[in-house]
Amino acid sequence: MSGTTTRPASRTRSWWGWGWADAHPDDAECTAMGALIPGTLARPLPVPRVRDLRIARPAVEPPASLAHLVDTDPGQRAAHAMGKAYRDVVRALRGRPGRIPDLVARPRDERDVAALLDWAGDRQVAVVPYGGGSSVTGGVEYRGDAHRAVLSLDLTAMDRVLEVDAEGRAARIQAGTLGPALEDQLRPHGLTLRHFPQSFEFSTLGGWLATRAGGHYATGRTHIDDFVQSMRVVSPAGTSASWRLPASGAGPSPDRLFLGSEGALGVITEAWVRLQERPTHKASASLAFADFQAALRAVRAIAQSDLLPANCRLLDAGEAALSGAAHDGSAVLVLGFESADGPVSARLEQAVGLARSHGGRRGTDPAGDGAPADAAVSAWRSAFLRMPYLRDGLARMGAVAETFETAATWDRIPGLIEAVRDEVGAAAVKASGHPATVNCRLTHVYPDGAAPYFTVLAAGRPGDEVAFWDDLKAVASEVLHRHRATITHHHAVGRDHRPAYDRQRPDPFALALRAAKGALDPRGILNPGVLVD
Amino acid sequence: MSGTTTRPASRTRSWWGWGWADAHPDDAECTAMGALIPGTLARPLPVPRVRDLRIARPAVEPPASLAHLVDTDPGQRAAHAMGKAYRDVVRALRGRPGRIPDLVARPRDERDVAALLDWAGDRQVAVVPYGGGSSVTGGVEYRGDAHRAVLSLDLTAMDRVLEVDAEGRAARIQAGTLGPALEDQLRPHGLTLRHFPQSFEFSTLGGWLATRAGGHYATGRTHIDDFVQSMRVVSPAGTSASWRLPASGAGPSPDRLFLGSEGALGVITEAWVRLQERPTHKASASLAFADFQAALRAVRAIAQSDLLPANCRLLDAGEAALSGAAHDGSAVLVLGFESADGPVSARLEQAVGLARSHGGRRGTDPAGDGAPADAAVSAWRSAFLRMPYLRDGLARMGAVAETFETAATWDRIPGLIEAVRDEVGAAAVKASGHPATVNCRLTHVYPDGAAPYFTVLAAGRPGDEVAFWDDLKAVASEVLHRHRATITHHHAVGRDHRPAYDRQRPDPFALALRAAKGALDPRGILNPGVLVD
Repeated sequence: MSGTTTRPASRTRSWWGWGWADAHPDDAECTAMGALIPGTLARPLPVPRVRDLRIARPAVEPPASLAHLVDTDPGQRAAHAMGKAYRDVVRALRGRPGRIPDLVARPRDERDVAALLDWAGDRQVAVVPYGGGSSVTGGVEYRGDAHRAVLSLDLTAMDRVLEVDAEGRAARIQAGTLGPALEDQLRPHGLTLRHFPQSFEFSTLGGWLATRAGGHYATGRTHIDDFVQSMRVVSPAGTSASWRLPASGAGPSPDRLFLGSEGALGVITEAWVRLQERPTHKASASLAFADFQAALRAVRAIAQSDLLPANCRLLDAGEAALSGAAHDGSAVLVLGFESADGPVSARLEQAVGLARSHGGRRGTDPAGDGAPADAAVSAWRSAFLRMPYLRDGLARMGAVAETFETAATWDRIPGLIEAVRDEVGAAAVKASGHPATVNCRLTHVYPDGAAPYFTVLAAGRPGDEVAFWDDLKAVASEVLHRHRATITHHHAVGRDHRPAYDRQRPDPFALALRAAKGALDPRGILNPGVLVD
Repeated sequence: MSGTTTRPASRTRSWWGWGWADAHPDDAECTAMGALIPGTLARPLPVPRVRDLRIARPAVEPPASLAHLVDTDPGQRAAHAMGKAYRDVVRALRGRPGRIPDLVARPRDERDVAALLDWAGDRQVAVVPYGGGSSVTGGVEYRGDAHRAVLSLDLTAMDRVLEVDAEGRAARIQAGTLGPALEDQLRPHGLTLRHFPQSFEFSTLGGWLATRAGGHYATGRTHIDDFVQSMRVVSPAGTSASWRLPASGAGPSPDRLFLGSEGALGVITEAWVRLQERPTHKASASLAFADFQAALRAVRAIAQSDLLPANCRLLDAGEAALSGAAHDGSAVLVLGFESADGPVSARLEQAVGLARSHGGRRGTDPAGDGAPADAAVSAWRSAFLRMPYLRDGLARMGAVAETFETAATWDRIPGLIEAVRDEVGAAAVKASGHPATVNCRLTHVYPDGAAPYFTVLAAGRPGDEVAFWDDLKAVASEVLHRHRATITHHHAVGRDHRPAYDRQRPDPFALALRAAKGALDPRGILNPGVLVD
């Protein structure tokens, strides 16, 4: 999370699973994890190989003028076939990935993007914008067969911080810049974007903007939306360039139409974003709660104060146990404060005081051995970063370890969490015939509500993983809909969330969005199937 | 600003000028003010009378089913003909108001709104949504003759707080609720919207939403955009109802399309908005700066800290003198902090410390008589609320006293302010043949920029006021455009800002917006001429 990741030139990304190929749990670790979940496989599924896939020759050839931007290597095409949801990983493990794109193109600048869009439009080639490829909602794959061919538009060659305005704390950054490279280029200026989604290493600024990413921080400036001064977006109808402004009341915000547009309205090529000084003062603490409902009230009180904690993560008992933050059935609230301006311990103590007044207990060691409770903070943080790799290891054991998130107003939160736990848990038990776990944590809190994040751990249905997960997700989506909780807080809609999104989105807004899409992408080549048809 | 305004039933709104008819300066006060500005009239123009206007009979009649909602009283029709910009006031003073609407309708609920839109669509009647009528950019008048008739849709009969969620600090409020009525209905719950634009008494929630209003506060939660949980918008294509959510990443925000849509995409009928506890801790101070550039640096340092002052208004020397905050050529920075959670004096002292480190002097009385400097705070506040009335009094003397605002990044601010002062000032002198004053204050500050607010005081060109002002505004708009400063920070686009808005708005966004308008308002009846054609 510190952004200091160094990347040896030799390190390679996994084509089928999360992150670095060399960071995946090995067979022994997979087997050990699988043993913790009744009903899983005895041995891990083999790591899938590109050469075992049947990859057809590209259905189109790029013109000579664009050939230098285009890659037809089967490994690259396979790696661009899908994002990194659990259902993507198991499709790869089972040798049935999504449609392999015909071509992977890596534009170096905006003119390349425009030229590729022009060519694709002429040839009825679908263009799927691709940043770090970390989508967990089917955002970067093509489904269907309405287009002659599919081009994965990989923006990662556009990876530079182009300008820094140190006085105004802003930078102009290319959309294909991955998190670590972005922070590396800002560090010499003493500044940071301070946007750390869990996917930080494997996602790009453009991807964050296109999906309205949520950062690591629980309150205040954490959503990428709030960091945008201006954007450049290349659409088949021309390039949209908004002005760099701290605020404007001139009509509906142009940037807000493209934020969350998931590549369906245009390709984001760069943005001026707001930066911050690196925090120098930090303080954190954790509190245990015997009563989850009391913990929810504590979190609400803190969220409604003007304390603005950087972290205010409430782990339910199951999540606390899973991450090693507590093992006695307590819920754990992890509080953190950060500032570049001055000490934050007074704010921390005020927040701790609020938590205590709702029954929080500070300083008891989760393992009961007298160590400081703040060990829970670091235990949780390492688990957080390692989690996607473990998920893939469990997938190799035939187990489901997947997450989904939502947000709702406070009045909905207790009932919503209980219903998700009960109904998704029951569905998992019924479908797998084995025990299942549904845990919850709050990742982001607001004065008027919170974002619960659920983790499902279940034996799954080996050989039928995709349908098993889709069934569970359908149950979850139904619960969310019934509680008027959003289908996504920060994972975007993609293709997996389309049915629920279509029910959530106001119909007149759908009309407006479809009309906007028709105006900007008249030939319907941009990320077809996402947001609107 | 406290929202405690009581409104005697007998009090009447001025049809031609700002606010209450009985609050206007009388002839003697007008004459005294005029004497301060060389080149103005010797006697005030008479207060205009509705009976002196030639008001034609309505070109259409409502059907019997809607007749009970419709008002054809000439006084009401005249009062709904325009907003309250300087150019509106002088048009009324000169007996040449904008086109008088044929009908004024006052729907009582959403069904009434939908029925009126249906009827208007069938009959090619333009519908101009009208809240408090305080637009200063030509937002509530009809220009042109492409429609058979004009209906002013006055929402102020929809003026209730319908639900309060005290735990989640939110309320469902009808769009036609004026500021004081809104706060009056929230007060028993101990909550406040805490949104106090200068027009507070004479503007509505729906108007704030449709124009992306800025509140009184300098930082943090001050724009109405940030208070929106959900909205209901009636369009000719159906009613858009978004879910009440603290946050969502599901596609581009539906609410953000309607925020700032100025009645061109639909009629906002109600919204769930986020509330706050009433602040109980307050502290304020003012500092004088001999050097305006140093003051700008002080403000930037404060805006980039995490102190979040409620007020951080920098008045330049002219503005400070005009409002009585200083008379020695100093710029004055007014700082204020508020909290419902705890004392704010430490934050105030930190901000004062930052200001001092940039050369600010605290505690010197503006008049030099040893009274505490904080008198500047209250002097400025009363002047702020009285200002629009004085503007109209000066208009009666043939003088221009008008304002406009913008926002720009910090790198642009010094040059922008200087260019506006120089070029608009020179244009005013040249056109009037008399001295002119252009003052500036910063009303809102951001880590990455600020919102300068300009006041122009000039003799004007009696008899030719509208053209005089339009010429000055054209000069101002050109300067803003050259400095890539927005045409409006919180006054909206309306009709007066259309040319500049069209230059500022990215072309592809214009295509998208026009397509959205076509989808939601296919017969083009909603506030024609606003935002898109």
